[in-house]
Amino acid sequence: MDFDPVDRRKFLSISGGALLCTIAGKDIAADTPVNIQKPASGVAVPPEVAAARGNPGPTKAEAGVGSREEYWIVAEPTVWNIIPNNKNGVKRDQMMNTRIRKGKTKFNAYAYRAYTPNFGQPLSSATIPGPVLEATVGDTMVVHFRNKCPVPLTMHPHGIFYANEMDGAYKGYYTDPGGFVQPNSEFTYVWECHEGTQGTWWYHDHGPMEPLPLYKGLFGAMIVRDPNEPLPDKEFILAFHSFLPPATSLKYGFNCVNGRSYTGNTPTFRANLGDDVAMHVLGADDNFHTFHLHGHRWRDGDGTNIDNKTFGPGDSFRIRFIEENPGRWFYHCHVFSHLVEMSGWYIVE
Amino acid sequence: MDFDPVDRRKFLSISGGALLCTIAGKDIAADTPVNIQKPASGVAVPPEVAAARGNPGPTKAEAGVGSREEYWIVAEPTVWNIIPNNKNGVKRDQMMNTRIRKGKTKFNAYAYRAYTPNFGQPLSSATIPGPVLEATVGDTMVVHFRNKCPVPLTMHPHGIFYANEMDGAYKGYYTDPGGFVQPNSEFTYVWECHEGTQGTWWYHDHGPMEPLPLYKGLFGAMIVRDPNEPLPDKEFILAFHSFLPPATSLKYGFNCVNGRSYTGNTPTFRANLGDDVAMHVLGADDNFHTFHLHGHRWRDGDGTNIDNKTFGPGDSFRIRFIEENPGRWFYHCHVFSHLVEMSGWYIVE
Amino acid sequence: MDFDPVDRRKFLSISGGALLCTIAGKDIAADTPVNIQKPASGVAVPPEVAAARGNPGPTKAEAGVGSREEYWIVAEPTVWNIIPNNKNGVKRDQMMNTRIRKGKTKFNAYAYRAYTPNFGQPLSSATIPGPVLEATVGDTMVVHFRNKCPVPLTMHPHGIFYANEMDGAYKGYYTDPGGFVQPNSEFTYVWECHEGTQGTWWYHDHGPMEPLPLYKGLFGAMIVRDPNEPLPDKEFILAFHSFLPPATSLKYGFNCVNGRSYTGNTPTFRANLGDDVAMHVLGADDNFHTFHLHGHRWRDGDGTNIDNKTFGPGDSFRIRFIEENPGRWFYHCHVFSHLVEMSGWYIVE
Repeated sequence: MDFDPVDRRKFLSISGGALLCTIAGKDIAADTPVNIQKPASGVAVPPEVAAARGNPGPTKAEAGVGSREEYWIVAEPTVWNIIPNNKNGVKRDQMMNTRIRKGKTKFNAYAYRAYTPNFGQPLSSATIPGPVLEATVGDTMVVHFRNKCPVPLTMHPHGIFYANEMDGAYKGYYTDPGGFVQPNSEFTYVWECHEGTQGTWWYHDHGPMEPLPLYKGLFGAMIVRDPNEPLPDKEFILAFHSFLPPATSLKYGFNCVNGRSYTGNTPTFRANLGDDVAMHVLGADDNFHTFHLHGHRWRDGDGTNIDNKTFGPGDSFRIRFIEENPGRWFYHCHVFSHLVEMSGWYIVE
Repeated sequence: MDFDPVDRRKFLSISGGALLCTIAGKDIAADTPVNIQKPASGVAVPPEVAAARGNPGPTKAEAGVGSREEYWIVAEPTVWNIIPNNKNGVKRDQMMNTRIRKGKTKFNAYAYRAYTPNFGQPLSSATIPGPVLEATVGDTMVVHFRNKCPVPLTMHPHGIFYANEMDGAYKGYYTDPGGFVQPNSEFTYVWECHEGTQGTWWYHDHGPMEPLPLYKGLFGAMIVRDPNEPLPDKEFILAFHSFLPPATSLKYGFNCVNGRSYTGNTPTFRANLGDDVAMHVLGADDNFHTFHLHGHRWRDGDGTNIDNKTFGPGDSFRIRFIEENPGRWFYHCHVFSHLVEMSGWYIVE
Repeated sequence: MDFDPVDRRKFLSISGGALLCTIAGKDIAADTPVNIQKPASGVAVPPEVAAARGNPGPTKAEAGVGSREEYWIVAEPTVWNIIPNNKNGVKRDQMMNTRIRKGKTKFNAYAYRAYTPNFGQPLSSATIPGPVLEATVGDTMVVHFRNKCPVPLTMHPHGIFYANEMDGAYKGYYTDPGGFVQPNSEFTYVWECHEGTQGTWWYHDHGPMEPLPLYKGLFGAMIVRDPNEPLPDKEFILAFHSFLPPATSLKYGFNCVNGRSYTGNTPTFRANLGDDVAMHVLGADDNFHTFHLHGHRWRDGDGTNIDNKTFGPGDSFRIRFIEENPGRWFYHCHVFSHLVEMSGWYIVE
């Protein structure tokens, strides 16, 4: 092989070409671009969804105790650049200090974006992952969801308590209105922070096009706080996922942390000596990963000291430690074929 | 790609075509049909097996304390349909509400089947997974095993205590009679529920053809109960595994829960509000999976709240919770390329 | 397929041909031989490394409390045979009792090797994994490292405490001298056994060629002992990893335990009834594995009884039990396509 640059055919071949998913009865290969609107056009509106006629959702579950944490979230198209940083057009990876030669890195993504009440103004630019949804045990989380993308979408939460019709999951014939929010429609999800829901969770599209919209960026972290636990001083979200050709129509697939690939483009997290640091990690693609942080270790849920943790699709967990080690550190997935793309800086001053 | 149906060549290509195993020194590709009796014919009878001449097995380990839980289990060929439900010949998936186009779904499987004492009458139709073997700490489990399949087989248990000759594992030259039960032969396994063996386990073939007979259906769950713990009100087994061409000679591979693929064909589990529910989950193929249950969460062994758990080949675990959330819920593997096939209904009334 | 021996093209095809890694900006396919010195020649010496001019490393971190555990470790080329045992040139697998037909099994490996003080004399032959580095909480571990291989290398430790410049990781432009030890150069790593670092860990190359040197053999186990815990009577290291064509230039890839493949070539571990046994397990390749031990079970960190455990790249853990079950047992990875190669004997007398 002798280290010649590989052409596209070769790269796809050595990248696997596995089956990503089946949508509307059609097999989607992980290495092949797909026009997401085409399969969407063949999906019938489920009967209960049709009957609800764009009603923004039942309200019977709204009578929670505790605070009412209210969010206005729009799923919207956005142009996303997986590797935005460059110098005179040249993109470099700061881990291996090499030039990145993967062609175009910008694509038409979908993102959840938070707005001021009644969908007034966006609270920030669109981000991948989407806004962190937070509440405390005892609270009710009310999420007003508007779909501005061209395919039916949902918000499906993990971990938090929700009544069946607040599941945000497409269920074929049995689909509730919250499981099939049509383009230009809204639905209000009401989720409840029962005792036993404290933890690091996530939410993602679980509509009839799943997992393609998720692979286009529709996922985010959710934190249900334990009222007996102090807030961390610094807190970071790390979503390990991939942007693949069926979702991006780009030439190459990318292993990502928070929508970016390669150290210097993935987030650089910063903390100070003495900080109580929490990192919330989640897996949002088809792969299994291991989370490794240089220069640090933490206690797993059972008290074991670890510095490397296996997690899979849909898993989410939190690590927490008191910062005592200054310097420029790597965090990365320790799967060697993911390592260079799924890595970034953690800087302690 | 434009969502044309893919032909077989394309499907196999995007499905991977990985190495499944090596049997009798030959590589078995995951996507290629195999005649299991051909490699079996080349396996020599190990010396201790030949010397035992069909003796049904040593009895020295039978003197356990506690009850004697006795089973008569036959490994037998059975015709198994991975997707039995259809309407006018059309098979549908209830999760995505699409037509399933995977050709034939019936094949010549192997199953463990329970009989009345002395192999009198079958206790039920043949099932995949096989019968649940149960006992309580302190008991001795005595399993009379008869092989009615055309290749040497065994029963290898996980978790429970057993003396070396009760291992049920082929060990080449060192094989005990329990590790090579020839066609039309019997062996009595004696396993002991020592303190420290309480848990959810499984058993499976570990003979000279492993893993092909397991991939044809030879595995089942085993529960060793803790006498200090109340019985659950409802209890379900969920084996995540696959039926692949080398074992089925079918055109396609299938990701399965309990021998079936797709919601509506995989088991529909039912519980009632207030039930103390246990789900016993095991991984019986070459893949890693994550178990996710909508609308529910549980405490992991270390007390962490989770609703999604990674497990791998050979792993088994139990989740337990008090049912408080009525409705029609999905359980599924959260690996997206497994999700639609490895999913089913959990209905709470 | 009918069990014909598969030729190389077929084997590579069914083995996957996945992407192993990207080095110096070039994609490395898992099934293709690579000359490691070629990409190495293109890596520039980072500025701080050039400025240090072969200084054996900072000493400011040496003032630890407790004992000073000092090691002299050389990374050196060695000829390694993955399947050394044969009878008249015929190699056999003791698990399945079949002839192994995988061609040449000897290659030019790299190994960490321990020497007497000041690199006087080797303490043993070169081994894969390398020497076990041991210390107790409170100790300072001082590792004098000399690179006798033709490419820049490092020693990166897991779990133990180390100041930023003792990380042993290549960081592109930001690389410290300990992250780029040039051929025929030395560096002294000082690592500290703070409270909270007790556990089973490992160390491995994390230089600019990573992961190729690791895939050639550069990894080893590290144990930080808890002073409040008795030493086990018997203690074993089990590294699950693979030797693949890019690192070996051999025709086939091998799934290995401690550098060997197949029962009878992988280590045979021995213990006695009543022994307090510890097994230290680590994952050092791109795959996820499950560790299964026949006839035994242990308590996981959370107190759950298990006999099969999932772990991924970079993970390390310890199991411990009192030996009570005599006989000839298998340990193995329970991923079926790894099972026959990644297995061995554990014999209790």
